[in-house]
This record gives sequence, C-alpha cells and structure tokens, in this order.
Amino acid sequence: MEYVAIVAMLAVIQFMAFGILVGQARGRTGVSAPATSGNEEFERYFRVHQNTLEQLVVFLPGLYAYATYNDARWAAGIGVVFLVGRLIYLRSYTTDPASRGLGFSLSFFPSAILVIGGLVGAVRNLM
Amino acid sequence: MEYVAIVAMLAVIQFMAFGILVGQARGRTGVSAPATSGNEEFERYFRVHQNTLEQLVVFLPGLYAYATYNDARWAAGIGVVFLVGRLIYLRSYTTDPASRGLGFSLSFFPSAILVIGGLVGAVRNLM
Amino acid sequence: MEYVAIVAMLAVIQFMAFGILVGQARGRTGVSAPATSGNEEFERYFRVHQNTLEQLVVFLPGLYAYATYNDARWAAGIGVVFLVGRLIYLRSYTTDPASRGLGFSLSFFPSAILVIGGLVGAVRNLM
Repeated sequence: MEYVAIVAMLAVIQFMAFGILVGQARGRTGVSAPATSGNEEFERYFRVHQNTLEQLVVFLPGLYAYATYNDARWAAGIGVVFLVGRLIYLRSYTTDPASRGLGFSLSFFPSAILVIGGLVGAVRNLM
Repeated sequence: MEYVAIVAMLAVIQFMAFGILVGQARGRTGVSAPATSGNEEFERYFRVHQNTLEQLVVFLPGLYAYATYNDARWAAGIGVVFLVGRLIYLRSYTTDPASRGLGFSLSFFPSAILVIGGLVGAVRNLM
Repeated sequence: MEYVAIVAMLAVIQFMAFGILVGQARGRTGVSAPATSGNEEFERYFRVHQNTLEQLVVFLPGLYAYATYNDARWAAGIGVVFLVGRLIYLRSYTTDPASRGLGFSLSFFPSAILVIGGLVGAVRNLM
C-alpha cells in the first residue's frame, strides 16, 4: 500500500500547490477576499482549484478501494495518470477554458476506473 | 467492510453523476466556464453538486469511523439513507430551492450519526 | 489509531458547525439559495466554510498517512493545532478577511507537515 499512499500524498500536495496559485492570482489581479469573481484570470485559477477539489473527493476513496479489493500497484499506476491529467488541466484551463477537455478526461476517467474497480472488487469479495 | 466500501463507492458515483448534470446544465443554459453564476437553473445544479461535496467530506470519514468502532453493517445501512437523501435533495432543490429541507436533513443527519457514533466508539475503545 | 480517529471526527464536526453558521448567515442577511454572494457578511462565513473544505481534503488523508507511517500520537497532536487554527481562522476572517493569515497558517502548516511526513514515511517504508 506504500505506492498508493505516495500517490495519494502527491495528489494532495498538487492540490495545495494549485491553492497557492489561487492565492498568487488573488494578489496579481486584485480580487480581495471574500470575493471569488470579477477577474477572468483569477476565476480560471480558482476554478482549476475547485474542480480538483471535486475530483479528489472521488479519486482518493477510489484509489484506496481499488487497492484494497484489486491490486495496489495498478491503483498507484492509474493514480499517476490522474496526476498528469490534473497538470494538463491546469495548463489548458488557464490558457483557454474551452480547451480543458483532455486534462479533464485524463483525471475524470482514471478516477472512474478506480471507483468502479473498487466497487466491483468489493461486490466480488462478498460472493 | 465490503458493504461499507460499496456504499462509499456508490456515494462518489452519485456525486460524479451530479457533476455530469452540472456540465449538462452549463451547455443548456449557456453559462461558460469559468463562470458559475448568471442563470438560476444552472446555479441550482451547481449548488446541489457543491453541497454534496461538502457533505461527502463529512460522510465518508464518518462512514469508515463508524464501521471501525461500531458495526459495519449498520454503517452501510445508515449510508443508504444518505444516498436516498441526496437524491431527494437533487430533485427538490432543482424544482424549488426553498423545498430542499427534507433531502438536506436525510443526508445531514445520517452523516451526523455516523460521525458522532464514530467519535463515541473511538473514545470508548480508548477506555 | 483511536486518537487519530477522534481528531478526524472533531475536524468534521467543526466543519459541520461552520456549515450551520453559513446557514444562519443566510437567514440573517437574506441571501437566498442558490445565491452565494451579494452580502459581505454572508460571503465571509461562506468562504470560511469553503476554505475549511479545501483544507480537510488535505488534512484528513495526511492525518491517516502520517499516523500509519510515523506516529499516531504525534499525528493527533498536530491535528489539534489544525483544529485551533481553524477556530482562529473563523474568528479573524469574519471580523476582517485581511487578518486571516495566522489562522490560515495554523491550519495550512499542520496539514503540510502531516502530508509531507506521510509521504516521507511511506517512501522510507519502501526502502
């Protein structure tokens, strides 16, 4: 399970880094707390961070469930795709939100595979 | 623990489905990323998704803690109420946000029971 | 691990309490769902809740990873600093958002320590 824990920690460190980028965008664009809108550049970083939050809530439980009921190394490998997908999502979304499809898919589908694999593995274990 | 893992996976799959509804509402209402406001229908789906995110961060740790320190089958059963509550929340919020109380309660209280049960069970285990 | 579970449950209970404060602020300021902006006081409570959500997604996996690969009592102790940090964050942010730095740091850095400690511990275990 160490590989899984390493990927999980890297995913939350990546999320923290995205949060720091939001803070920097706040300073650069002059969007003061508590506001979260009013400047397109800020909103892009803000949305990348928020979308990553939404994905982590699926990814992390899926990662551990897949590792528990299937194979931990496969779980970690699929998790690496997720990490790369998030990086592409950050770069494409902040350049042009309309181009976010690839990065989104490269993190959404790995999460979906982990969750469905975890579900199927748990059901199979019951039988 | 398999029942617990199954309920956990179903809860994140439900959350992914709510996310897809948000994406569809984006297309239907013409609210383009990074915007998240400007159309009441879109905002309702967006808020259902966001509120479910907030609830999952409580529900999932509570589910596992309750199962660890109390009974895994009860944890899973309470989790099923949560799943139904979220579905009612989706339907009522998108029809009329003012009617969201029942669906909210049917997911908030199961989460609260799991968390408080998990806390009490862990404290009892220490003694 | 009971100390860790107790701190984890207290963190999500604190988050639920912050959510109740958001609901009360909604009533007090007349910001009706699905809106989440339009009143500065409401937005402060809303942002405290959202920021705590973002922090929990880092804190909880870090807490368990640190406890698994290092020491569970240290994990719980660092977690208590996080809980106090969040309380300071709530009080300072709702008084004056510009003063939120201390409370933010007292929860961001404990989370960072847990995550990096968990990562280092897992890598060390592999070798």
